[in-house]
Amino acid sequence: MTDTPLLICGAAFTEDERARLSTAVSSVSVDAPRAIAGLAPGAAARLRAVAYKGHEPFGAAEMDGLQGLGLIANFGVGYDAIDVAAATQRGIRVTNTPDVLNDDVADLAVGLILAQARSLVRGDGWVRSGRWTKYGAMPLARKVSGARAGIVGLGRIGREIADRLAAFKMEIHYHSRQEKETPGWQYHADPVGLARAVDFLVVALVGGPETRNYVSAEAIAALGPTGVLINISRGTTVDEGALIAALEEHRIAGAGLDVYLDEPAIDPRFQGLENVVLQPHVGSATTETRRAMAELQLANIRAFLDGQPLPTPVN
Amino acid sequence: MTDTPLLICGAAFTEDERARLSTAVSSVSVDAPRAIAGLAPGAAARLRAVAYKGHEPFGAAEMDGLQGLGLIANFGVGYDAIDVAAATQRGIRVTNTPDVLNDDVADLAVGLILAQARSLVRGDGWVRSGRWTKYGAMPLARKVSGARAGIVGLGRIGREIADRLAAFKMEIHYHSRQEKETPGWQYHADPVGLARAVDFLVVALVGGPETRNYVSAEAIAALGPTGVLINISRGTTVDEGALIAALEEHRIAGAGLDVYLDEPAIDPRFQGLENVVLQPHVGSATTETRRAMAELQLANIRAFLDGQPLPTPVN
Repeated sequence: MTDTPLLICGAAFTEDERARLSTAVSSVSVDAPRAIAGLAPGAAARLRAVAYKGHEPFGAAEMDGLQGLGLIANFGVGYDAIDVAAATQRGIRVTNTPDVLNDDVADLAVGLILAQARSLVRGDGWVRSGRWTKYGAMPLARKVSGARAGIVGLGRIGREIADRLAAFKMEIHYHSRQEKETPGWQYHADPVGLARAVDFLVVALVGGPETRNYVSAEAIAALGPTGVLINISRGTTVDEGALIAALEEHRIAGAGLDVYLDEPAIDPRFQGLENVVLQPHVGSATTETRRAMAELQLANIRAFLDGQPLPTPVN
Repeated sequence: MTDTPLLICGAAFTEDERARLSTAVSSVSVDAPRAIAGLAPGAAARLRAVAYKGHEPFGAAEMDGLQGLGLIANFGVGYDAIDVAAATQRGIRVTNTPDVLNDDVADLAVGLILAQARSLVRGDGWVRSGRWTKYGAMPLARKVSGARAGIVGLGRIGREIADRLAAFKMEIHYHSRQEKETPGWQYHADPVGLARAVDFLVVALVGGPETRNYVSAEAIAALGPTGVLINISRGTTVDEGALIAALEEHRIAGAGLDVYLDEPAIDPRFQGLENVVLQPHVGSATTETRRAMAELQLANIRAFLDGQPLPTPVN
């Protein structure tokens, strides 16, 4: 009987990522956490680690379906799909892939600001469709440099975003649970006050129940008719119903969004909005970064199977 | 007989810009330089200043059509449409609107890099068209932070671009006629060598005959199959035929373009390219910056009519 200690869990893994994992460690595969219940009991009992990639809940029931489970190694920095409390209770370790994706997510946040304010998607269509020749210049856009930016959540990604925006001579404001040491950036104890003070509000919170609707209807209202909301964190962190209503009624100027409450089947009202740039959750979706994430996930799995300290533990 | 010293020349002026000029100074209007020949001789003789906005040539013939002309005040930093040598010969001063648009043009250059590398236009279409739900994730994009950037022309705009890209931890290379004092950026005496050394080549040259095809077929070839060309300067600065061929044959990875040889009637082959982000010459096209440019143009006209030193003279 071969030792097959790894369960590769998630349809989201690319062929390449899957091949690298299964070449490194003997493994079986399922498409989603709910498929764990369908594994043969003998094989399930021998599984000691899960390589997870996805956003479907991985909870107590799935953990209890794998009696020998000691590690859930998440692909991604956000592990809100995994019930960490349930894992800790069962002595199961959880790891994620932090830091290696900070640059990409921060780049996307800046890209969304520039694309929204400077109408880059519309501009590309204006040229390709021949509207430039037919109708002349596009309506004027909005200046980014020198505007006021507000970061909600000044963690590692939020700080990378602020560092980049500072090079655009933007006034940097932020909100986090506690005031931080920064190069002269302005702290706001209240997210609503932050929204009121800025032109571009960038949400860089962690996901999970504690930050659900953290950017509330009140905060969205405080942004006002010239305010733009950027969300590269999780769809849950913003009151999505309030956001859509504010966009539809032009109570805020626009949005740049990479994340949504329901992915990929997003609220269809988003697709009709003109003042919004939409991305399909691509914060870390570059060849370079996905490779680094895959390597870090595998490093955690290897360390666990070898009884070594975990490189990036969550619990 | 009223004194009407100003000719507002150019269909490109917005209603608002035109109104501000004509409120400030008594004026007549023409759509383009070639319409100057059609002015009534009496009125033409009394014109002392031209407020120009456009890209059609303003040459010796137009100047000779205005016997009392002492100033051509250009709206924009690039005055390559105006024959400055002919103006100088005739004792006509030329002014432009430098510096106030540096931020916007630099912002657009960074926006084009991010939009091209991170497939932002395609991403927006992916979500809006429902392809995300139907086909899943988009193909992976390319990381921007940490890549190598090369600036062709380290003038005031080039430097603003480099300052921003440095915040993305990019390695900064540049080419200019002479080596400059920089914070550790790498100088290349040869534009082809610069292209060979970088991932993103950003063209920030002035226009005009001296820089025609400055980014040559050889430089485009040196960029190679992973190289991306960004042009926010003038269509003339890049060998456009060589660029289109390289893009069509995938000998370079892509481009982000705001300027073209023929505007707005660009080469139709551009519109079929997938690896390119196209913008309709919007480098300075924000409400804030266009207002600042209008104010600077008017300040030059007022100074000239009042016999005061010109704020931003070209000759």
